[in-house]
Amino acid sequence: MTQVEAYAALGPGQPLVPWSYEIQQLQPNEVLVRVRACGICHSDVHMIDNDWGFARYPLVPGHEVVGEVVAVGPLVTHLSPGMRVGIGWQRSSCGQCEDCLRGQDHLCDQSQGVITHGHGGFASHLAVDARYCFPLPNELPTEAAGPLLCGGITVYSALRAAGMGSGLRIGIIGMGGLGHMAIQFASRLGNHVTAFTTTEAKAREAAQLGAHDAILIRNDQPSRRPDRPLHIILNTAPVPTPVEPYLDLLASDGVLCYVGAPTAPISVPIFPLLVKRRRIMGSPIGSRATILEMLENAARFGVLPRVETFPMSKVNDALNRVRQNQVRYRAVLLA
Amino acid sequence: MTQVEAYAALGPGQPLVPWSYEIQQLQPNEVLVRVRACGICHSDVHMIDNDWGFARYPLVPGHEVVGEVVAVGPLVTHLSPGMRVGIGWQRSSCGQCEDCLRGQDHLCDQSQGVITHGHGGFASHLAVDARYCFPLPNELPTEAAGPLLCGGITVYSALRAAGMGSGLRIGIIGMGGLGHMAIQFASRLGNHVTAFTTTEAKAREAAQLGAHDAILIRNDQPSRRPDRPLHIILNTAPVPTPVEPYLDLLASDGVLCYVGAPTAPISVPIFPLLVKRRRIMGSPIGSRATILEMLENAARFGVLPRVETFPMSKVNDALNRVRQNQVRYRAVLLA
Repeated sequence: MTQVEAYAALGPGQPLVPWSYEIQQLQPNEVLVRVRACGICHSDVHMIDNDWGFARYPLVPGHEVVGEVVAVGPLVTHLSPGMRVGIGWQRSSCGQCEDCLRGQDHLCDQSQGVITHGHGGFASHLAVDARYCFPLPNELPTEAAGPLLCGGITVYSALRAAGMGSGLRIGIIGMGGLGHMAIQFASRLGNHVTAFTTTEAKAREAAQLGAHDAILIRNDQPSRRPDRPLHIILNTAPVPTPVEPYLDLLASDGVLCYVGAPTAPISVPIFPLLVKRRRIMGSPIGSRATILEMLENAARFGVLPRVETFPMSKVNDALNRVRQNQVRYRAVLLA
Repeated sequence: MTQVEAYAALGPGQPLVPWSYEIQQLQPNEVLVRVRACGICHSDVHMIDNDWGFARYPLVPGHEVVGEVVAVGPLVTHLSPGMRVGIGWQRSSCGQCEDCLRGQDHLCDQSQGVITHGHGGFASHLAVDARYCFPLPNELPTEAAGPLLCGGITVYSALRAAGMGSGLRIGIIGMGGLGHMAIQFASRLGNHVTAFTTTEAKAREAAQLGAHDAILIRNDQPSRRPDRPLHIILNTAPVPTPVEPYLDLLASDGVLCYVGAPTAPISVPIFPLLVKRRRIMGSPIGSRATILEMLENAARFGVLPRVETFPMSKVNDALNRVRQNQVRYRAVLLA
């Protein structure tokens, strides 16, 4: 039996309060993790506020966890106590469907989230299916690695699904928590990166992060064209963005990929899709194989989220900064 | 010098009238073709009516040509007089851009159309760049092969670009000139085909053409779900179709592909794209390599447009039937 000291929202939109619960016994396939750090993702805020309508309270947010394995169930073979691990959005999947069988279990209809189907990482401990608990390379520091597990894999997997190889011309819309990691991944893995952002200050930071070019967004539109058409544009903006001005910057067979989900539908003109065989797609988090690949490449190529850290007791202060979009670029709670 | 006896529109929306012009001399890379048959495509009607704003009159329509080579320019090596050939939408490309160099010259910015940049196949002869003139397999009859060159390649190339292999579950929206060829290609090449159509009669015909299932469209929506989610849905409908009811039928990584270009933008909800990593794309005509592949497979697997034939002198009668959507499924003029 483990007594978990957590922070929970007791109802929609409420500040978090100390709250504890007990983990009676690990399931045979589960692992118990002592939390050392946990990033704050906008999805945590959406869940606290019940924006998606399926939050259950008390709700313990937190799904960008770095911690230490303290116990493993009898069926767990690849993890052992003392290992440093990361946990992201997903906590389980059915294991039997077509998506699971082809290794794309993050697309499984029965996929469960750490904070949608259990208690998350704003806590002393959490227990999850060991399949969704990933050993962390030594190069990734505990206080910064958390955001790789959700925001990082979301952009990495999307870029791969959109066709990211090397030597391609890739545009990144938005320079927040997701965008600033996407710029790093795309550029460190050998692609030419154009950042689309709203301020001169962020344009300069984009360059520091590895962007080769930055184009200011003015009146919701890119203020100029890149020198050459882009193969991929990743849209990380949390707000609706007009489609046609960006479609128009794509090369033939170019892909416009969404990782944020604006609630309103987007309006897509068919003609620019048709004449250049362009594509629009969406992509959520990433598969387990892609998470391991992402962590390895983050470690090898020095991709790290830039974070602001807070003691976990200051979780409400941190959440307020996230809500006000003041964090550059990702908030992390330290246990 | 060749005197060409053609049928031309002298102004927007006008009936075609006999009209002749002269081909003074072939360019070194050109081939002169004696027209034997020419399909009528909805694009011909759009051009006659100047719906796209760039028609030039006198306008000789016709870009689904089957004919016989009667002369070749001195630089032409792969064609010779007497060969039976087909000509589709495209008549030229720049030959130097990225798209041309990677064999995707149908996506070239400088691509020229047979009827947008010259005189088409409602005529005794036409001259085109020999690169866009394709030897026809013997198995394909002259009176039916024409529609393969535009409608056929449009759906074949789109299905390939959307990922058509074999053993996939493919939906085809619409059972007109394009849809009835798409059903044949997808099913004869070893895929499970679901036709979406508006009438019981067309559902029965879809089965004759090779569809394994047919789902009626009611109030613009599929009246039921297929047994299993689809890998690809090809939308051949010339009218706007709601997006979400079809997106929802796609498997993970499924693709919704447009080959018609409704003038109004489509409204796309992001969430169904995101959770299952689905894609929306458009695709125009096809590359030269894909045209040869399509012709070979049409010949091998017995894919043929179902056509109504008219003597070329009855071109206005044929056009009227096309305008009224009465043709099952493609009209062909015989010279």
